Amino acid sequence: MSTYFTLDWIDGKLRLLDQRRLPHELIYLDYEDYHQVAEAIRDMVVRGAPAIGAAAAYGLALAAQQAQAGSIAELQSRLEEAALVLGESRPTAVNLSWALARVMRRVRTAAALSPAALAAEVLAEAQAIAAEDVQVNRSIGLNALPLVPDPAVFIHHCNTGTLATVGYGTALGIIRVAHEAGRKVFVYVDETRPRLQGARLTAWELQQLGIPHAVIVDGASGWVMSTRGADLSVVGCDRVAANGDTANKIGTFNLALAARAHGVPFYVAAPTSTIDLSTPDGKAIPIEMRTAREVTHIGGEQVTPAGAEVLNPAFDVTPAEYITAIITEAGVAYPPYEISLPAMLGRVEQA
Amino acid sequence: MSTYFTLDWIDGKLRLLDQRRLPHELIYLDYEDYHQVAEAIRDMVVRGAPAIGAAAAYGLALAAQQAQAGSIAELQSRLEEAALVLGESRPTAVNLSWALARVMRRVRTAAALSPAALAAEVLAEAQAIAAEDVQVNRSIGLNALPLVPDPAVFIHHCNTGTLATVGYGTALGIIRVAHEAGRKVFVYVDETRPRLQGARLTAWELQQLGIPHAVIVDGASGWVMSTRGADLSVVGCDRVAANGDTANKIGTFNLALAARAHGVPFYVAAPTSTIDLSTPDGKAIPIEMRTAREVTHIGGEQVTPAGAEVLNPAFDVTPAEYITAIITEAGVAYPPYEISLPAMLGRVEQA
Repeated sequence: MSTYFTLDWIDGKLRLLDQRRLPHELIYLDYEDYHQVAEAIRDMVVRGAPAIGAAAAYGLALAAQQAQAGSIAELQSRLEEAALVLGESRPTAVNLSWALARVMRRVRTAAALSPAALAAEVLAEAQAIAAEDVQVNRSIGLNALPLVPDPAVFIHHCNTGTLATVGYGTALGIIRVAHEAGRKVFVYVDETRPRLQGARLTAWELQQLGIPHAVIVDGASGWVMSTRGADLSVVGCDRVAANGDTANKIGTFNLALAARAHGVPFYVAAPTSTIDLSTPDGKAIPIEMRTAREVTHIGGEQVTPAGAEVLNPAFDVTPAEYITAIITEAGVAYPPYEISLPAMLGRVEQA
Repeated sequence: MSTYFTLDWIDGKLRLLDQRRLPHELIYLDYEDYHQVAEAIRDMVVRGAPAIGAAAAYGLALAAQQAQAGSIAELQSRLEEAALVLGESRPTAVNLSWALARVMRRVRTAAALSPAALAAEVLAEAQAIAAEDVQVNRSIGLNALPLVPDPAVFIHHCNTGTLATVGYGTALGIIRVAHEAGRKVFVYVDETRPRLQGARLTAWELQQLGIPHAVIVDGASGWVMSTRGADLSVVGCDRVAANGDTANKIGTFNLALAARAHGVPFYVAAPTSTIDLSTPDGKAIPIEMRTAREVTHIGGEQVTPAGAEVLNPAFDVTPAEYITAIITEAGVAYPPYEISLPAMLGRVEQA
């Protein structure tokens, strides 16, 4: 369907689309060393919470290959090391630790008879995570469909499409399902400073899909809502705490504030793998601070004066009170999230 | 005091600092033709409502020189033409039409005995506008001082410093007065997409002044207020309507929404020349739409995919209800602005 993919396992290597080069170049990089996968996650070759979860799981598959272990115990120990390295690559998105924990659960309880058999199990688990992701995203889109009017004017932050996931997309998946269902949709695309995922990636994906849209600067969302009107805001997430507080790309909270002021529903598209009941609230979510250079330089060009001081948080937290609903593959969770989120996760575990 | 200036009249020419080249190059351009001044305003060689008002007034002084008129009537007619051309250069900031109207009032009621004498009067009026601007800005800063705590963490949008005015600055003038009065101040600087006036100009001016600050992306203001805290937001304005609705650089409204949600006072620094009682409310303020290229390209580099659709409003309107006070050279206006703004203008006219 898409003419591009975010990540895939090909001939014993992890292939990643280099998202730093988009939209101008479509270049894939092959990885055989899990340390380099951790580096690729840190450098945002691959980004988007679901995508980095799957990439990290494949990183463990590479680690299993690399280990050339003589025993199951040796392989288990090498994989524990690798899980630590991969787990430290980025702190905010919980999908990373979720995916690693899922693979490592299988590693720790291995019934495999040989290191090779265990390595095969690790790869199979990574492939299962990747395959499930696409289905999860389609389900999120279908669950959201009753909430989408016709016509529907969306406002969207960051990138949550195929490029942020293994396939299809989360918040962009909601837009895609509505479009494929024949709804007349239009999308205002926050450019999403500093990394410009909206301008570079979301605009490009919407072009491929033939979905009408306009890129705006992040500061224009209030103006759009007050003068042009919007029917709903949809965003992805990097971690949803037990009380519904949601970490997502910096700028999400400001969009939620604009939505609240204009009575525009604000929806978070969340695979249940992004919901972390062990994090009580937003204050407990670690916010990654990234290099000043993302703000001071654009492309190769410096915009600020030399020596400018910069504060560059990669994420913010939108308090639960600003979130109309959290849309998962298992259904739509409404406030109070303390009750609806555990119920949602229970449904997934029973399935 | 400053080692740079925004505009000046030197040897019969208007000299403008080319703000498009800042902060990397300090280059001045000389103008002898008012058409080119209109072009310079349109291209943002000079920007900031008070600065473009003064530049337009000097544009009329150039037009008077250029006219080489044989009679007062001929000169008056050429100046009427020039006022139209200059007045169309940018639509939102009312200072432009305010300054042109002020000079043209003198032209239309001329008691001058010769075209040369009238041309001298036009220049004198432009110079008065420029000289008054610096005093107005200092008064705004002094009037705001009782509202500034010690220490004070400011959050600021766009550029409102010397570079946005003839000298000293409006909202940045408030920060400067507080700093000069010995208050311990810190400024979060919205980078201000798409033209990056915060990252390029405000960060540079704060460096020159030795005022501690950090540049943030526009989407980070909510995060800053919720996690670091801010004591007050200060912004400039391009037009204040009779009811207090205020047009200012795109992104101002989103900052006001974040301020409201966090109980942070939101102050507009407004020379009374920016208050337009003939504009009833924000809906009546024309919002300039600028080229897509400001969003699609940064420096010479294209960030969006080829053919991307863009919507690029240069300004937004912050409704009066979000504005804690409007600080002018004549005092501080509080809601209801329908009453306090006319009183403020009356005080200026009596002075």
